[in-house]
Amino acid sequence: MAAPTPTLARPGLSPTIEAALRAVLGDRLQLGEAIRIQHGTSEAHFAVMPPDAVAYPENTGEVVALVRICRDHDLAVIPYGAGTSLEGQLAAVKGGLCLDFSRMNAILAVHPEDLDCTVQPGVTREQLNAWLRDHGLFFPIDPGANATIGGMASTRASGTNAVRYGTMREAVLSLRVVLADGRVIDTAQRARKSAAGYDLTRLFVGSEGTLGIITEITLRLHGLPQAISAAVCPFETLEGAVNTTIMAIQMGIPLARIELLDEVQINAVNRYSKLDLAEQPTLMLEFHGTEAGVAEQVEMVREITTMNGGGDFVWSNLPEERTRLWKARHNAYRAGVALRPGATGWSTDVCVPISRLAECILETKADLAGSSFPAPIVGHVGDGNFHVLFVLDPDNPAEEAEADALNERIVRRALALGGTCTGEHGIGLGKKRWLREELGDAVDVMQTIKQTLDPQGLFNPGKIF
Amino acid sequence: MAAPTPTLARPGLSPTIEAALRAVLGDRLQLGEAIRIQHGTSEAHFAVMPPDAVAYPENTGEVVALVRICRDHDLAVIPYGAGTSLEGQLAAVKGGLCLDFSRMNAILAVHPEDLDCTVQPGVTREQLNAWLRDHGLFFPIDPGANATIGGMASTRASGTNAVRYGTMREAVLSLRVVLADGRVIDTAQRARKSAAGYDLTRLFVGSEGTLGIITEITLRLHGLPQAISAAVCPFETLEGAVNTTIMAIQMGIPLARIELLDEVQINAVNRYSKLDLAEQPTLMLEFHGTEAGVAEQVEMVREITTMNGGGDFVWSNLPEERTRLWKARHNAYRAGVALRPGATGWSTDVCVPISRLAECILETKADLAGSSFPAPIVGHVGDGNFHVLFVLDPDNPAEEAEADALNERIVRRALALGGTCTGEHGIGLGKKRWLREELGDAVDVMQTIKQTLDPQGLFNPGKIF
Repeated sequence: MAAPTPTLARPGLSPTIEAALRAVLGDRLQLGEAIRIQHGTSEAHFAVMPPDAVAYPENTGEVVALVRICRDHDLAVIPYGAGTSLEGQLAAVKGGLCLDFSRMNAILAVHPEDLDCTVQPGVTREQLNAWLRDHGLFFPIDPGANATIGGMASTRASGTNAVRYGTMREAVLSLRVVLADGRVIDTAQRARKSAAGYDLTRLFVGSEGTLGIITEITLRLHGLPQAISAAVCPFETLEGAVNTTIMAIQMGIPLARIELLDEVQINAVNRYSKLDLAEQPTLMLEFHGTEAGVAEQVEMVREITTMNGGGDFVWSNLPEERTRLWKARHNAYRAGVALRPGATGWSTDVCVPISRLAECILETKADLAGSSFPAPIVGHVGDGNFHVLFVLDPDNPAEEAEADALNERIVRRALALGGTCTGEHGIGLGKKRWLREELGDAVDVMQTIKQTLDPQGLFNPGKIF
Repeated sequence: MAAPTPTLARPGLSPTIEAALRAVLGDRLQLGEAIRIQHGTSEAHFAVMPPDAVAYPENTGEVVALVRICRDHDLAVIPYGAGTSLEGQLAAVKGGLCLDFSRMNAILAVHPEDLDCTVQPGVTREQLNAWLRDHGLFFPIDPGANATIGGMASTRASGTNAVRYGTMREAVLSLRVVLADGRVIDTAQRARKSAAGYDLTRLFVGSEGTLGIITEITLRLHGLPQAISAAVCPFETLEGAVNTTIMAIQMGIPLARIELLDEVQINAVNRYSKLDLAEQPTLMLEFHGTEAGVAEQVEMVREITTMNGGGDFVWSNLPEERTRLWKARHNAYRAGVALRPGATGWSTDVCVPISRLAECILETKADLAGSSFPAPIVGHVGDGNFHVLFVLDPDNPAEEAEADALNERIVRRALALGGTCTGEHGIGLGKKRWLREELGDAVDVMQTIKQTLDPQGLFNPGKIF
């Protein structure tokens, strides 16, 4: 852990800067300590690093004005969505102005006939899906937390549906971005594909707020499936659950979700969400398609499951049952953290080629056998992505050191298997040391681009590099 | 048309440069006029612009050595695949060294268990698919021409299967790239997804050889479908064919291919490929899935077809029949050009949101009614992308001017409908004037990135900007 020390004691904004910001924002500039601390506190194990002030802009023009003021006064700009990022992306390591997008939460346009929509960055995925339901549409990217679309675009989020519907990389059609010099660009038109110049959309997706401030996002949508079935299946062994996943992916079965929870995670979920699932390695599955198509997928998966020591499927076909199941899955992180009162969470995030997933998870599980703290495993295993959640006593530095060593082993193992240190959480503060080990000189190219587009280092400083 | 004048009369390489290149390449440096002209001649309407020399590198190390020599002597570097690009991407507008990748055509690794492979840039898509067939796999991106994977990555190619399988943007997992300063980077690991820093893979995909030289490509593959059915369906009207497409896409039917050919194009295809299709607006369709899944898709599409004045499906279920059908479709460009002896082709390439496709095609068709030359229409309509092929007398400047005016109307119409000037052919020389109109200040950001990564303007000068 190389997290900077907290900056609670910063002197705050100069009267000049405050006046300039106030002229744009009025009461929507907040300087109170409680609000600043809230905006500098992540859900994960990072130190609290509050900004000097929190702005609540209402439109792109205000964001432009704020960026210009910050540029003129060399004040860092940190975009803030729902605060659910897991690698310290929101931490104000140099203080600065936090842009809280909660007032830019309008769904600007839905084009059901084109299966797309345009939203402001503060729209949350649950808000969007509630709105879309009446159009017969849904937005599939689902990282668990009720994150904002802006935050999800910034971290290239994915989650439980990515195995079928892809990640934010595939979901974003176009972005409106405020650059460090105050210019506003649109990265693409609304057409489904284009070969018009460099793919700026993908450059900003996953750039964690370091290259520009996203103020509008156009997203691809999908029609609600005719039929949806969800099931839970316990396995005798972790290996059986992982091998079921590998075989299903290799056979090309178009699963909508295939999620692994080990017995430690199931125990945590049972306690937190008041369920009584068998405390065994478990797959949670969802099938989308026509009635006949879903039935066919289920039959194929059931055969594979039986071959690998899986038990009976427990079905959740009613919408409210499915909602309960996936809500429990979404709360896995909080359920894990709740295993120890007062604990903080630290989630690993490696992703490997699917053929190497069994060895990667099983060797990791062996690593965890002697750990001093609970460490449940949960995974978007259809993508080769899984998380170990270290449930740490924040007052015990020895545990943090132990977690750090375990994480190092896990990351090194994944890299050796052709994998990545982060499947979906991003680099933020927590993975900076691994980025270079993973991508070598490519990181220089990234830094060159950062330097070119944000020479002052205004946007979300201290992240990624 | 703002194409530069040909540079046939260039003085050629200095003895110093030639000696330096010869030391790397030996006989694999070619200076003969015929070879240079061949490498400066595109399939489309651009003037011949040959390089000063053609290199046939055999590995990444040689490419590095060549790039360093070119950098030291300020000689342009133009990568060359199969020469099938349609916007003049191969033209050596400043002369320079053409890197012909035909000797870097090895399939380096296939990982059937991970559904991916790694290839050199000179591998063609047909070569790759012939190799993959024994593994039960296929690579779906299919621009018609037997292009190289390197060229397809560089132009962000798509084609007939993109409606289901995406474009090169989705197909490329990672690239090895030689930068302008001679460094070599890998843009990503082989994991299926990653949130590790900026998406350099997508930055190089579609950059048309202007940012770096691609020397290895790792691709996502797909399992061969259990069942494949292909059909041809003629329509009473162009509108009926387009509306069938729109409805099928809006209903979420997972069509593998849905291709439109107007009656002019069908006439050309009949002549060129010796078929006897009804000379009406026609859809060519392909369905992938399980036996039951394909049957279900066919039933849904048939209902839509009937509603829109479609005739009977003519089925091609045997592999050899399917091959014949798609070969005819792939030859549509050449079939169109063959409508007039000695003609050259000029293909437009707009792509619009699917709901606007009918008006875009129908108004375009009306534009073409009075044209002085044949102008068949063919389209990857499931993506909202279609091409008008202007079949021009190369000795008649009035026809070129007429084509230019028609193209301008088509592009402006597409932009007004939220579309792009290029769905899949790229900017090259031919669309430079439209890029700015489409994306405004975003083009400045692209140019800044170009300037940063290739300050000397070494790589494929004169393209995109």
